[in-house]
Amino acid sequence: MTSLPVQATTDDPAVLAAYRTDRASFCPSGTPKALVRARSLQDVVQTLQWASENNVPVVPQGARTGLSGGANALDGCVLLNVEKLDRILDIDVEEQIAVVEPGVINATLAAAVAEKGLYYPPDPGSKDISSIGGNVATNAGGMCCLKYGVTGDFVRALQVVLADGRVMRTGRRTAKGVAGYDLTRLFVGSEGTLGVVTEVTVALRPAAARPLAAVAFFDTTADACRAVADHLGGGFRPAALELMDAATIEAVAKLQDLGFPPGVGAVLIAQSDAGTKAPEELAAFELSARKCAATEVIVSEDPAEADLLMQGRRLVGLAFEEYPASLVDDVCVPRRHLAELVDGIERIAKQYDVFIATCGHAGDGNMHPAVLFDHAQAEAAQQAFDAVMQLGLDLGGTITGEHGVGLLKRDWLARELDEAALWSHQQIKNALDPRGILNPGRVIDSRATGRAAVDQRSS
Amino acid sequence: MTSLPVQATTDDPAVLAAYRTDRASFCPSGTPKALVRARSLQDVVQTLQWASENNVPVVPQGARTGLSGGANALDGCVLLNVEKLDRILDIDVEEQIAVVEPGVINATLAAAVAEKGLYYPPDPGSKDISSIGGNVATNAGGMCCLKYGVTGDFVRALQVVLADGRVMRTGRRTAKGVAGYDLTRLFVGSEGTLGVVTEVTVALRPAAARPLAAVAFFDTTADACRAVADHLGGGFRPAALELMDAATIEAVAKLQDLGFPPGVGAVLIAQSDAGTKAPEELAAFELSARKCAATEVIVSEDPAEADLLMQGRRLVGLAFEEYPASLVDDVCVPRRHLAELVDGIERIAKQYDVFIATCGHAGDGNMHPAVLFDHAQAEAAQQAFDAVMQLGLDLGGTITGEHGVGLLKRDWLARELDEAALWSHQQIKNALDPRGILNPGRVIDSRATGRAAVDQRSS
Repeated sequence: MTSLPVQATTDDPAVLAAYRTDRASFCPSGTPKALVRARSLQDVVQTLQWASENNVPVVPQGARTGLSGGANALDGCVLLNVEKLDRILDIDVEEQIAVVEPGVINATLAAAVAEKGLYYPPDPGSKDISSIGGNVATNAGGMCCLKYGVTGDFVRALQVVLADGRVMRTGRRTAKGVAGYDLTRLFVGSEGTLGVVTEVTVALRPAAARPLAAVAFFDTTADACRAVADHLGGGFRPAALELMDAATIEAVAKLQDLGFPPGVGAVLIAQSDAGTKAPEELAAFELSARKCAATEVIVSEDPAEADLLMQGRRLVGLAFEEYPASLVDDVCVPRRHLAELVDGIERIAKQYDVFIATCGHAGDGNMHPAVLFDHAQAEAAQQAFDAVMQLGLDLGGTITGEHGVGLLKRDWLARELDEAALWSHQQIKNALDPRGILNPGRVIDSRATGRAAVDQRSS
Repeated sequence: MTSLPVQATTDDPAVLAAYRTDRASFCPSGTPKALVRARSLQDVVQTLQWASENNVPVVPQGARTGLSGGANALDGCVLLNVEKLDRILDIDVEEQIAVVEPGVINATLAAAVAEKGLYYPPDPGSKDISSIGGNVATNAGGMCCLKYGVTGDFVRALQVVLADGRVMRTGRRTAKGVAGYDLTRLFVGSEGTLGVVTEVTVALRPAAARPLAAVAFFDTTADACRAVADHLGGGFRPAALELMDAATIEAVAKLQDLGFPPGVGAVLIAQSDAGTKAPEELAAFELSARKCAATEVIVSEDPAEADLLMQGRRLVGLAFEEYPASLVDDVCVPRRHLAELVDGIERIAKQYDVFIATCGHAGDGNMHPAVLFDHAQAEAAQQAFDAVMQLGLDLGGTITGEHGVGLLKRDWLARELDEAALWSHQQIKNALDPRGILNPGRVIDSRATGRAAVDQRSS
């Protein structure tokens, strides 16, 4: 085997160790052979050409903020990290699009386009640390999805390097286009298993008004869920509609006193960026909340106060980090089953004797139940985590609303998809990556295809 | 070869002749072997199983209102028509989704959901005659795309029968989901080359307000295009923003006196369904129009008057039918090049001495230049049609914004896509339809893959 012909390569064990994992807890990661910190398209091309010729698995990485182990190292792999490809190449105000390299941080892009009076809506919870390339790889969501859609809804075009190093352009700069298969959407959410994204063209929107917000307190999560249904059933599309259950409130309260009334069972936070219509939207939300037995509703008078009301929701991630370990789930169910989901999660917590805090994007039916535990409880935590996914499927939902499958949920994907859909996945994977070098064993089990180039076991 | 085991089969030559073509002019169509008018999922499954076993090409058909020859017969093929699969299976008000069979007419679905206070936005010009299955097959657009998106943006899930007769479900009923590759979006717009859609789950929106409208008259199309840029640059997203050039106005005027001022060079029609904010939106449109030298602007006082203002735009299709023959193009360019596109089309009309009427979705940069001619001019018309597509590509656009590739533009697709993207198309086609029986020769030239099961030549 010739050595990797890319200058930006390191095999320093300390550096390799630092790049071995993303943020998925308890996901195995292997020992990589080398790390390429690509600084040009050419670096990506040469790495893939070399890997293809030498049958070496490649794990594409961005900011490694993923929660599914999709960027974890495989034994003997090359980690192909694109975080240094971080230029904003173009912000085209007239066409309302931006062209960026994959390493650009989500919040950096959002701020850059905001300066030009434009808006990039996809806002995953990780927006300050996750990169656009990673957002594309997982089709990341966020709080604004309810009104604006997910990452994929904003991706117009991609530049992708295929497994053998060939460079491909998908999509277009125009608002519409149906010339050929929608390769753009096929690559969005494919988690580095079909190619490595090296450039992303995103659609932008005109800047929205600074949001107003309202918070409603309930005795039970069931009441909060009924309020969600009532408000959305009234034809409203708030810019966010977030739920925190009692356990989440408890976790956050340990970090900061939010001044919530004592004994709160659930909180709903609605946000409206509808400008002059925002007060009307929030009044309607208040009406729905009170109709569904809200014990108190606070409506912001101005954007600064709205910001304060959102504070509790934003602290959730930090609050969870206070626990020794966590497993964050990502089930999404039809909205009418939201209360059943949240109640079922409480039952699962009791059954496995673990602490589960549930919050998430109630308007989309997408919840993030987090099993918070210490290491002695690891087995029960994993069982509870799995039970939540099964509950999501039983309620007609999906195992992952926005975090992706990666390694963490790979074996669960086979429960969600039917046999023909699994077959289609494997056919597409083999068609575009015939040697099976691209992030093998992630999303689907490529061993089942009989073409896996490498040993998937990792330490 | 065993005979087709499906009861709903006919080989009556008169019936076969009637089903040989869609609405693409001058697209070759072959002589089919049989027509299956499927009345059940089982009919589709058995037809594909049989065709797969006997290596017979299958051309899926819906309402046959396509404009690209994608549903035209191939010699010796089975026409698999799903227009009789036309049940609305479910309208779920709470989840804001509907589940329909592919033969349901677009306008029928729109009316059914409107009765329940919901809205299905995709509104291709053919909405009264085209089916949801066909809309999905081509990823159809329409006037409302500017604000709401195209068909694919509303498809949540599909039931698809694969080439070998296996039934597959893609997507989900939930608002979000990233479990596996986005097979739904891969099949949307694949024009019957990857599978036959037998059920579609679409997302709905709350009903919008009845629209108001405004019409602005200009001396030149360039002025009208500048007004489009100015209005959208102001951060507005009208529910439609349509352009008609002088030739289109002339064609429509032959059909009905619209009371337009004499000598009009171009017309822009803006529609707003923003309810109480609609007058404000239309006032902003008027301001943009006047700033860009509009000679007159009429703003509707009420929805009934708005309906009258839209009348001219709606008559375009009918007006074109008055000509002996037509070739309707579908280029989409970055908005800043809209004026260059329209001016270039005028030059092409002069160069080839044909009459080209241009109208379309100006807000999206998606124009439908129609070459209107009598049969003696067929060659010049085809050359002009091709020159328009080349112009669209030269301006950074696409050969098809919403009509699809079909047969008509298949050879042009190779000019739009790069080599790696064409390879990816062929790999995906071969992966999902290994025998090459599904609508072979449409979208991509499967002969180039070396796996074509049939002779593509058709009479």
